[in-house]
Amino acid sequence: MRVKFQPSGALVEVSEGTSLLAASHQAGVALESPCGGRGTCGKCRVIVDGDAGPLTDAEQRHLSLEEIQAGYRLACQAVVASDLLVRVPEGSQVYSVSILSQGLTREVALEPWVRRATLYVPPSTLEDQASDLAALQKAWQQQGFDDLSVSLGALRRLPAALRQDDGLVTLILADGELIEILPGVDEGPVLGLAYDIGTTTIVGYLLDLTTGRELAVASLLNPQTQYGDDVVSRIQHITAVPNGLQQLQDAVVGAINRIATDACRQAGVPADCVYGMTAVGNTTMQHLLLGVDPSALARSPYVPVVAEAVSIPAQRLGLAIHPEAHVWALASIAGWVGADTVGVILATGQHQADEISLAIDIGTNGEMTLGSRQRLVACSTAAGPAFEGAHLSCGMRAASGAIDQVSIDGDVHWRTIQNTPPRGICGSGLVDLVAQMLDAEILRESGMMHDAQHLTDLGQSALAARIRSEGRHRAFDLVLPQEGADGRPVRVSQRDIRELQLAKGAIRAGIEILLDELGIGHADVARVYLAGAFGNYIRPESALRIGLMPAFPNAEIVPVGNAAGSGAKLALLSQSARDETRDIVRLVEYLELSILPEFQDQFAASMVF
Amino acid sequence: MRVKFQPSGALVEVSEGTSLLAASHQAGVALESPCGGRGTCGKCRVIVDGDAGPLTDAEQRHLSLEEIQAGYRLACQAVVASDLLVRVPEGSQVYSVSILSQGLTREVALEPWVRRATLYVPPSTLEDQASDLAALQKAWQQQGFDDLSVSLGALRRLPAALRQDDGLVTLILADGELIEILPGVDEGPVLGLAYDIGTTTIVGYLLDLTTGRELAVASLLNPQTQYGDDVVSRIQHITAVPNGLQQLQDAVVGAINRIATDACRQAGVPADCVYGMTAVGNTTMQHLLLGVDPSALARSPYVPVVAEAVSIPAQRLGLAIHPEAHVWALASIAGWVGADTVGVILATGQHQADEISLAIDIGTNGEMTLGSRQRLVACSTAAGPAFEGAHLSCGMRAASGAIDQVSIDGDVHWRTIQNTPPRGICGSGLVDLVAQMLDAEILRESGMMHDAQHLTDLGQSALAARIRSEGRHRAFDLVLPQEGADGRPVRVSQRDIRELQLAKGAIRAGIEILLDELGIGHADVARVYLAGAFGNYIRPESALRIGLMPAFPNAEIVPVGNAAGSGAKLALLSQSARDETRDIVRLVEYLELSILPEFQDQFAASMVF
Repeated sequence: MRVKFQPSGALVEVSEGTSLLAASHQAGVALESPCGGRGTCGKCRVIVDGDAGPLTDAEQRHLSLEEIQAGYRLACQAVVASDLLVRVPEGSQVYSVSILSQGLTREVALEPWVRRATLYVPPSTLEDQASDLAALQKAWQQQGFDDLSVSLGALRRLPAALRQDDGLVTLILADGELIEILPGVDEGPVLGLAYDIGTTTIVGYLLDLTTGRELAVASLLNPQTQYGDDVVSRIQHITAVPNGLQQLQDAVVGAINRIATDACRQAGVPADCVYGMTAVGNTTMQHLLLGVDPSALARSPYVPVVAEAVSIPAQRLGLAIHPEAHVWALASIAGWVGADTVGVILATGQHQADEISLAIDIGTNGEMTLGSRQRLVACSTAAGPAFEGAHLSCGMRAASGAIDQVSIDGDVHWRTIQNTPPRGICGSGLVDLVAQMLDAEILRESGMMHDAQHLTDLGQSALAARIRSEGRHRAFDLVLPQEGADGRPVRVSQRDIRELQLAKGAIRAGIEILLDELGIGHADVARVYLAGAFGNYIRPESALRIGLMPAFPNAEIVPVGNAAGSGAKLALLSQSARDETRDIVRLVEYLELSILPEFQDQFAASMVF
Repeated sequence: MRVKFQPSGALVEVSEGTSLLAASHQAGVALESPCGGRGTCGKCRVIVDGDAGPLTDAEQRHLSLEEIQAGYRLACQAVVASDLLVRVPEGSQVYSVSILSQGLTREVALEPWVRRATLYVPPSTLEDQASDLAALQKAWQQQGFDDLSVSLGALRRLPAALRQDDGLVTLILADGELIEILPGVDEGPVLGLAYDIGTTTIVGYLLDLTTGRELAVASLLNPQTQYGDDVVSRIQHITAVPNGLQQLQDAVVGAINRIATDACRQAGVPADCVYGMTAVGNTTMQHLLLGVDPSALARSPYVPVVAEAVSIPAQRLGLAIHPEAHVWALASIAGWVGADTVGVILATGQHQADEISLAIDIGTNGEMTLGSRQRLVACSTAAGPAFEGAHLSCGMRAASGAIDQVSIDGDVHWRTIQNTPPRGICGSGLVDLVAQMLDAEILRESGMMHDAQHLTDLGQSALAARIRSEGRHRAFDLVLPQEGADGRPVRVSQRDIRELQLAKGAIRAGIEILLDELGIGHADVARVYLAGAFGNYIRPESALRIGLMPAFPNAEIVPVGNAAGSGAKLALLSQSARDETRDIVRLVEYLELSILPEFQDQFAASMVF
């Protein structure tokens, strides 16, 4: 017989006599049923249209005459005796949840793959000496489910839990596996952690899986930086040091644990109530989390050991959450387009959109994806450290004292983060500076700095005074010695400009190659998502001015913040979203730029401002 | 198209173009293929009747003209181009293996659920940057298999293994999961351990899973005895001591590890080549191995937490074999009829026989199963410690100096184990003694000892001199003080006789109730299997004389030694045999004697000799 649930519209076929509670489980409609279907709590009220069998004593106790006349029934008592329309009133309906990423919201139904259920397991008797496990399975199947798989830990806790509250238990299921069993109706927290494991920064989001609410955020510098600033130097560490891989894994696991502890402390919840975790990161970060050697990524043909999603119990990785929590390291697209890009696509919905969009996630590497639900192409380029402020003569991370905005009109004006005396320049400041230097004719389109005379000729004596010449090398004092912290200048050298040119050239070349691959022009792009911290702070007009990206005449430019982290959250809160990552990996075509002959030409052409 | 393999007779349907090697895998026919199907080793020769495509270069290199004329092909090169009959010559055929248990042999096909395969995985290229895992899966699927599940450990070893020998690897699979990957063609040992975990003694059998050969046996006293001699006292220990469960698990795991080390040392093989393990034991022993609290077994309604078979990776249990070896704790029938009984049934084949058989496994508890493939009933009785020589005034285990055979003709004659001076009497000796005491009229049928005068009247003065009277209590000096070790007698008291009466009465009553349940008489039983050490040493005629079991006029009496252990070996060497345990558990009907009103009557009646 057919049972339709409203408002979700879910439709199931069940055999006559099935309880409505069992039918709701089959339909994926979550009803409140704290008593485990024994008819004692009266919470699983539904409004039924059709024949649902005679009223039971339990229903007569729990429902008023008015309710009965209005068609109210208890789902655990009513049975399917005809085709039915079942309306589920407020209070026990599946929630939907919005994941915000700066300029972006994606709304999904809250359907985490970690869930809680209450169950009444009738005690065994001398006449039916079923094992505890068999009794549990039987009660579970009578709710309309298949056999449970049961973790060893849950099996060990089973006998005490079953006997403490006369067979009433609360189950915690992860991907259908029973990982925890608690006596009685347990209303303690059911938590999950979503991690974005960046090469530089690790961020963890603590989520309540029963409401979808974010309870806390915590982050740390990735302690792997002590073994190398970028992915390649960390891989070299593995090759050079016998237990290097173990050191790197220990470092990331340690940071994940400190973040978990911090987030749980902030929210006032115990870490062993974290039953599920997702992690996105570039492909190397995913390998290191799993303790898998990523060295093959660093040499041709640049293949990962594993690009597939991997699920591992927390205790196998040494994570200090519930020992049998399921940890999902999400799938990667290729060796250099990782699960973090999958997260960006999931959060921006590029894979489901009809319009064409470009997502740019710039860190030490730049990953770009272009396309729509029809076709989505991706590439990665080694942007170098310039955008992160590293390896520049006066570069620094986007921290206190870093110049992050610059303007030039007759003289130079800048802003520092937290308005402290200037100590250096960060990536977004550098992009601003170069854009302004081009407009002020301090720089040629080739990237060469003019000499002071040229500026004097233009009547820009204040600017001319900032040009330094050291032999054949020129430099520009953005901050004069007397203006700087500790009396030191912030000086941008010709070599720094070159670094930026290499970085922006690689990104720009990647974008152009993606456009070529799809056979489309700049005007066809409807949206540009700028992801990551750099994408957040960069001024789009400066990025355009230096040619980091072309002008997209019809595109809306949307900074989306940590979209990779939003993807991790979505995959934690919604099994469907997690399943979408599989489609994303299948859909995305990866372009290996190093084997494309046109890339070198495009790269050279893109270095010009 | 249909392919039939001879001599196994296996038949599969495959699509045109499938390689014969892939078809053989599907058919469960194991062919030698050390090169992983690349056509370089020439070992996968088969004789083909039908169209198997044109000869390849590899075949022309490896096969002589005569062989080609005789229909020889290489299975990795030939493809299915019509329905085929494929004969597999000697050398790569599935072995069969015989498991001996004293008077019993069961022959099964060698088809362990741990197996080794070689595979060639073509390296990834810049054009096809498949992950190592994806490349492995693809190569595996091309052999005709489904996706592999891959353990975390194997994933970690994958990149090095794939690159060391140009993509040629050896896989170790347990239940279809890849748990180890080794570079090249690895011909190292593939081992398994089968354990019989007795309340008193633990025995481990080390088997070569490629040949089925037993490489070593090792055993230890179960160190749990320090926490209690029998199951009930160990359960009391758990209730009494906070970490009692952990102590008991640590004890059994420690003993398993010492046995594994010992057996591997005997055989000169490394313990990390042990990839699979089976364990049988009574239900409590199975719980303790898993670290699951068995306390509910000791109180009504006597239910286990888990009676189902459980498979756990070795490292979860702290076992010092390959960390991802699959450990199978086999299924139990009920709380007091455990996996050891399942092992006995598997080894004796009671569940497959048309004739009715009775199996008796006597230890601290007696478990009995009666029936045939039609119907099999089982029960358990608390035999008490008399059969193990414990709790008797002069009782001892069957060890050096224990009297294990007795005869009386005018005076008493006895034999000790290892012919050392007598220190006490063991179970089989006690049964002999009582049988002889009955014949010599030293004992009445009621179990009461006659006084010395009665024997003097019979003219048995030597025997009369052995009767001691201490107030109302009588005793019998089997060994006079001057004959004994250290000048001490071996004296059997009236109370010792009572202990034996209780023990044999419980066993006998169980047997009679099983016969009643099946509605059959003594004459209907065709075989009686005596399992366990006690069953091995007992003289059947003495067991009959004291009425431990009735006379079965048509039955062959077969001592089968450690049949439980043989069952564990079978389940290790043969996946089909392991699957049979599921059928056994379903087939066997357990009778809970404590709730049968007729049991007490039967028990009382059975105490008389």
